[in-house]
Amino acid sequence: MTTDINQLKTKDTNQLEDKSTFAKQRIRLIFEPQSVVLIGSSKIDEEVGMTSPELFQNIAYNMKKYYKYTFSELDIEKSDSVSQADLAIIVLPPEQSVSWAEQAMMAGVQAIIQITGGFSDKVREQYLKLAMKYHVRLLGPNTIMGVVNPTIGLNTTFERNLMPVTGKISILSQSGGVGAALLDWAVFYRIGIGKFTFMGDKLDIDDINILNYLVEDPDTKVIAIYMEGIKAGRRFVKAAKNISREKPIVVLKGAITSESAKLAMSHTASIAGSDNIFNAAFKEAGIIRVKDIDELFNASLALAKQPPMKGKSVAVVSNVGGPAILAADALVREGLKLAHLTKKTKDIITKRYPGVDVINPVDIIADARSERFKFILEHVLNDPNVDGVMVINMLKSCFFKPEDAKVIPEVAKKFGKPVVDVPVGAEDFKLVSDILIESPIPTYDLPDKAAKALKVLFEYNKIKFGKEK
Amino acid sequence: MTTDINQLKTKDTNQLEDKSTFAKQRIRLIFEPQSVVLIGSSKIDEEVGMTSPELFQNIAYNMKKYYKYTFSELDIEKSDSVSQADLAIIVLPPEQSVSWAEQAMMAGVQAIIQITGGFSDKVREQYLKLAMKYHVRLLGPNTIMGVVNPTIGLNTTFERNLMPVTGKISILSQSGGVGAALLDWAVFYRIGIGKFTFMGDKLDIDDINILNYLVEDPDTKVIAIYMEGIKAGRRFVKAAKNISREKPIVVLKGAITSESAKLAMSHTASIAGSDNIFNAAFKEAGIIRVKDIDELFNASLALAKQPPMKGKSVAVVSNVGGPAILAADALVREGLKLAHLTKKTKDIITKRYPGVDVINPVDIIADARSERFKFILEHVLNDPNVDGVMVINMLKSCFFKPEDAKVIPEVAKKFGKPVVDVPVGAEDFKLVSDILIESPIPTYDLPDKAAKALKVLFEYNKIKFGKEK
Repeated sequence: MTTDINQLKTKDTNQLEDKSTFAKQRIRLIFEPQSVVLIGSSKIDEEVGMTSPELFQNIAYNMKKYYKYTFSELDIEKSDSVSQADLAIIVLPPEQSVSWAEQAMMAGVQAIIQITGGFSDKVREQYLKLAMKYHVRLLGPNTIMGVVNPTIGLNTTFERNLMPVTGKISILSQSGGVGAALLDWAVFYRIGIGKFTFMGDKLDIDDINILNYLVEDPDTKVIAIYMEGIKAGRRFVKAAKNISREKPIVVLKGAITSESAKLAMSHTASIAGSDNIFNAAFKEAGIIRVKDIDELFNASLALAKQPPMKGKSVAVVSNVGGPAILAADALVREGLKLAHLTKKTKDIITKRYPGVDVINPVDIIADARSERFKFILEHVLNDPNVDGVMVINMLKSCFFKPEDAKVIPEVAKKFGKPVVDVPVGAEDFKLVSDILIESPIPTYDLPDKAAKALKVLFEYNKIKFGKEK
Repeated sequence: MTTDINQLKTKDTNQLEDKSTFAKQRIRLIFEPQSVVLIGSSKIDEEVGMTSPELFQNIAYNMKKYYKYTFSELDIEKSDSVSQADLAIIVLPPEQSVSWAEQAMMAGVQAIIQITGGFSDKVREQYLKLAMKYHVRLLGPNTIMGVVNPTIGLNTTFERNLMPVTGKISILSQSGGVGAALLDWAVFYRIGIGKFTFMGDKLDIDDINILNYLVEDPDTKVIAIYMEGIKAGRRFVKAAKNISREKPIVVLKGAITSESAKLAMSHTASIAGSDNIFNAAFKEAGIIRVKDIDELFNASLALAKQPPMKGKSVAVVSNVGGPAILAADALVREGLKLAHLTKKTKDIITKRYPGVDVINPVDIIADARSERFKFILEHVLNDPNVDGVMVINMLKSCFFKPEDAKVIPEVAKKFGKPVVDVPVGAEDFKLVSDILIESPIPTYDLPDKAAKALKVLFEYNKIKFGKEK
């Protein structure tokens, strides 16, 4: 039965989607509807399929609180007709979902987010046929959390008040749980989000459809993906290859030990093999691979805010010695180099600040404040031997104040070279990040993370331009 | 000149320290004085050596705010005699420091923390000879921040209000900047600290002296070190080898690329070589090596709170699927195994919770709360095939509430097996950590970090007992 659906889908829906502007427009309505209807029940409380009055109410709460356009909710216990809307969000058990989806389609709904799951193959097939008949695009079933688009306040999740700020990183998650963790992370650390998608079961809309939408979305600069597997592997690689030159794609691949995860068997040999296939595919597709959730965000943040890095030579400008040494270690560990500063740069800096020993890392001493950071950063960025800079500005044990960090984006914007900032520590990180959060300078709490971020900017340069410098 | 000092030191002070209870007792006064005098100036404001009225005032502020015993401050601009105290903290330029140190020694002071630096070899030699003459132990010069002992409120740092909570991790830093970052981290994340030491220039007291003190200190369960180099390498390895069987030693080694850091040259070949020497030395010494600041804390936290792990087989008990897959990936990446649960365990759990598919990772489903976690964790821990457990309890997209986490330490304490907890995410992590912070269960925000922590517990089992199981 599943095979039949997939054949059906490949023949019709996806081909339609790949070629027709019409189908693309309807995918856009998943993320940018001008009107939304939420269809659920104030009575039905399933155990498995997740339909519940609470979940229904929570989505309604978020939509009423955040959504900027026309929103209506339909409790099937109280009403029996759907009003027209661009998008319907459905939170009902499988058979009721299909029946209400058909009503919605007849009323003119053009896109559906099916939150709940638990569909049999038979009902899935009905649902897909219906969507094709009405040319309606369907996300799900079993998306659990649906989508988030902060720009228009669209938030179909059932977690109240979990709304990220607007930004340029778009996220696609193949797991509800990992997706929820990613959304939690983005909200807590105020990482700006373009579009957030929980894929669910991909009966109609799949990862490639979303990628094709995001590549044209002006609110998306970076595409971050959590994936556990790919069904149409070749198609995916081909699509990603085109997109990754336009916009960076960063992937966290789960289930690298899928056999062990699924079968509770740990046969290490098979892991490397299957995982290497993904490595090869990602490389071909120009996808940047990361190892965990924080790396996914750290890489995406750098790519969203800073230009690609044209070479491997990095300068470290720091007001503390030890952390600068850790930075040098981390850069070399990532395969980058410590830039050799030119004599000219050294002379200019030494003349102005005779106390500063101008080798790289440049230790500009604990009493440095904005003026010294500004002068030295400017001349280091101007050095032709420097491809990018890691700035380290601690507060503890130093004279630096959080507001001094404002000079960093001011200076950095004059050069086309990446600059990342590391207020090493915990409270220090928070205080300086608060100042830089809306600037184009990404902040990291440890030199290690900043080195990885610069490495990613260097990798992306090769992906985008096919070469160094 | 430096060589002379070192010879002097090796012949006398350190030998004295290694053999004499008397010298050890005086080292203890660095951390556990019953009376402290702070000697500084309200006028002198150096640029290089760090003497300043502000720094003097800040240390006085911290001592007055936190210290539990007798504290007095001596402003050399206003007074000319030192009253007796166990410990003197000196914040003056080099020559004044030596002169006032002598007065303090004559008044009966038995230990000195020399905060400021900038000493010439000649003055260093004077200082050391003086200390030896009076049998006074000296930490520094150039310790910058000195020591912290939260149990008695001793805090000689010049950062106001940077006071960690009491705990069992003792930290030794060879860098002021990295040390300040570690202290910031410990305070911000409420990681309990036994003793904190900023080593400075080690004119008298060196790392080995501190290790010998910490191994006998009841407030120290784990010793965490940031080091950039070791002078007496063989002596250090020998000392660490004895200590590491009693108490775990975790080391973050900076300057693995010291040549590159110092000479601004990146010749990768030399790095691996010199770094491998450290790897070999650490292995011989039973030292656990980590790669960055967060790993240092993550490992120390596990070692301070949980028993060593006797084997490699780990069970994952999770209320979400995706993160459990990331956990399985991370465990296998760390060289650990997914435990094969026995048929008995599977039967007991399946009988009580037919919806739960009892393979490892055990996905106990998003609606699990304390009762289900308790029952399943208990039976998984009781399984003879399980050496340790990673619990994953997300709040977002789940029914779990932070207070439900209280059952985890309750169950874990009945078994001698390590249990770590992962409320995956950011706000989720904070909310659950708030509940568990004083319990013996360490919490991590990502499965990757928890897997590394379990790996360290497994490594330490081999160090302590020399074998698996």
